[in-house]
Amino acid sequence: MSLVVVGSMAFDAIETPFGKSDRIIGGAGTYIAWCASNFTPVKQISVVGGDFPESELAALTARGVDLEGVQIKKDEKTFFWSGRYHLDMNSRDTLETQLNVLENFVPVVPDSFQDCEFLMLGNLVPSVQSSVIKQLKNRPKLIVMDTMNFWMEIMMDDLLHTISLVDVLMVNDSEARQLSGEYSLVKAAKKIIAMGPKYLIIKKGEHGALLFHGDQVFFAPALPLEEVFDPTGAGDTFAGGFIGHIVRTKDISFENMKTAIIVGSAMASYCVEKFGTERLREISKADISDRIAEFVDLVNFDIKLVVE
Amino acid sequence: MSLVVVGSMAFDAIETPFGKSDRIIGGAGTYIAWCASNFTPVKQISVVGGDFPESELAALTARGVDLEGVQIKKDEKTFFWSGRYHLDMNSRDTLETQLNVLENFVPVVPDSFQDCEFLMLGNLVPSVQSSVIKQLKNRPKLIVMDTMNFWMEIMMDDLLHTISLVDVLMVNDSEARQLSGEYSLVKAAKKIIAMGPKYLIIKKGEHGALLFHGDQVFFAPALPLEEVFDPTGAGDTFAGGFIGHIVRTKDISFENMKTAIIVGSAMASYCVEKFGTERLREISKADISDRIAEFVDLVNFDIKLVVE
Repeated sequence: MSLVVVGSMAFDAIETPFGKSDRIIGGAGTYIAWCASNFTPVKQISVVGGDFPESELAALTARGVDLEGVQIKKDEKTFFWSGRYHLDMNSRDTLETQLNVLENFVPVVPDSFQDCEFLMLGNLVPSVQSSVIKQLKNRPKLIVMDTMNFWMEIMMDDLLHTISLVDVLMVNDSEARQLSGEYSLVKAAKKIIAMGPKYLIIKKGEHGALLFHGDQVFFAPALPLEEVFDPTGAGDTFAGGFIGHIVRTKDISFENMKTAIIVGSAMASYCVEKFGTERLREISKADISDRIAEFVDLVNFDIKLVVE
Repeated sequence: MSLVVVGSMAFDAIETPFGKSDRIIGGAGTYIAWCASNFTPVKQISVVGGDFPESELAALTARGVDLEGVQIKKDEKTFFWSGRYHLDMNSRDTLETQLNVLENFVPVVPDSFQDCEFLMLGNLVPSVQSSVIKQLKNRPKLIVMDTMNFWMEIMMDDLLHTISLVDVLMVNDSEARQLSGEYSLVKAAKKIIAMGPKYLIIKKGEHGALLFHGDQVFFAPALPLEEVFDPTGAGDTFAGGFIGHIVRTKDISFENMKTAIIVGSAMASYCVEKFGTERLREISKADISDRIAEFVDLVNFDIKLVVE
């Protein structure tokens, strides 16, 4: 039973209405690994440059993250992204992107990762995501894919191919609309599910998340927060909590995916409280249980006989 | 035990991306009465002109709506509103407003309404809302108030006075931000609750609704719909379902308000399926129970032990 995670490991520089970070550790794969390792060991596939701190790699190893699939290109530089959030924190401008090691990244799945039963494809070049699927000798029990609008704009064909190979797709609401050409999220979900994935998760930020499967739908809330300090990595952290719960419980039913979405939402609500991965490094298992209990209180109601 | 509803009864002309209505029956008081009368008798306070159809008044009477508090000004015209919705259905332009009988409306509470235990103040001039509160010899067990941004712009002092007199205030998310000057809805809720109401409901349309009380918060989903045909009256219908459930169960606890919000959301999800009040006139008690069951499915999850 093992979880393989594919995703970028990066440096980020972030500006929000609350402040500005230095060059800090980021990347979808990093957030997913920090989050999912609360629930299960992780086998990581990624690439970094010689400038990526060894202390960070050691910290991940200490968390139970197996880095055999992480290529270290000594003479190259790590992927770098810099962005600025708007006041509403729901939109952001990219200030700078340096692909660096990501430019010619060819993922290699180590032999020791061939026992993969759960595959989490963090947001990354769609052909890199599909390459990992194809290198696996046995199809995992569950393949979950995150992606973003950027790939819809520049490589839609590759993206649609990768989407056709996965079981669960995660996108945000505007991406679901862009991918389907439908404004109604119910109609968008039908079209996207027809592209291949049996399950679709639509992330709506402060408005929660929706899970679609056949004619079934589940609505998970987001915790109303006084302040969102830095939304970077919230979606990746959500993915890490989702897949982490699924792997820990070894249950890929629709019912258990609902619970996994609550776990993902709880983890994401911690992520945004500080810059980068800082908060994820601090929280304990007791913190996680407390936050999940808050989600239960948030949505729990007693439905009495309403019409006699 | 009686429910008094205050609100406009009107003609509306509506354009949506799906079509255009004739001059149809509308008004906050009308929607609330059609909706709440599924759960309890209603005593209505409003004003109409001589042009308001007797058949509509008869239909409401047949539903258990007592119209003794509805003034009929034979020689005047009923309030008229016309508006056009944008493609996203979340925003609209007012094309025309004719205040007519509303211009000099002085509400009069009939003696037979003095047994009022629950008061629902639909969106209306704030001084008309407060006048009804002051005419009641005994303070109701619960006063619920709906309002809108329009009054924040032209008569904030009157509005704040009325808000200070009520137990539950309902506004949408942008109105909560406007009223409080806070972007975070958690911060906005704290400021608004400091203005007087012990409970605040923030309606977020397709994103559901939040209920705040002290440090407690409840998040109710909206049913994801394939199509929203006409959003007019959805907020009023929500109010009617909320107060209807409270009156029927005679329970003003926070726990029961959660259930009341689910009932309001279920009723609002019917309202938007057709133009005006059409859908509300059609649905049966069985339809209401079915829709509430859909809401239970929508949010229900089984929280297993998440971190061992």
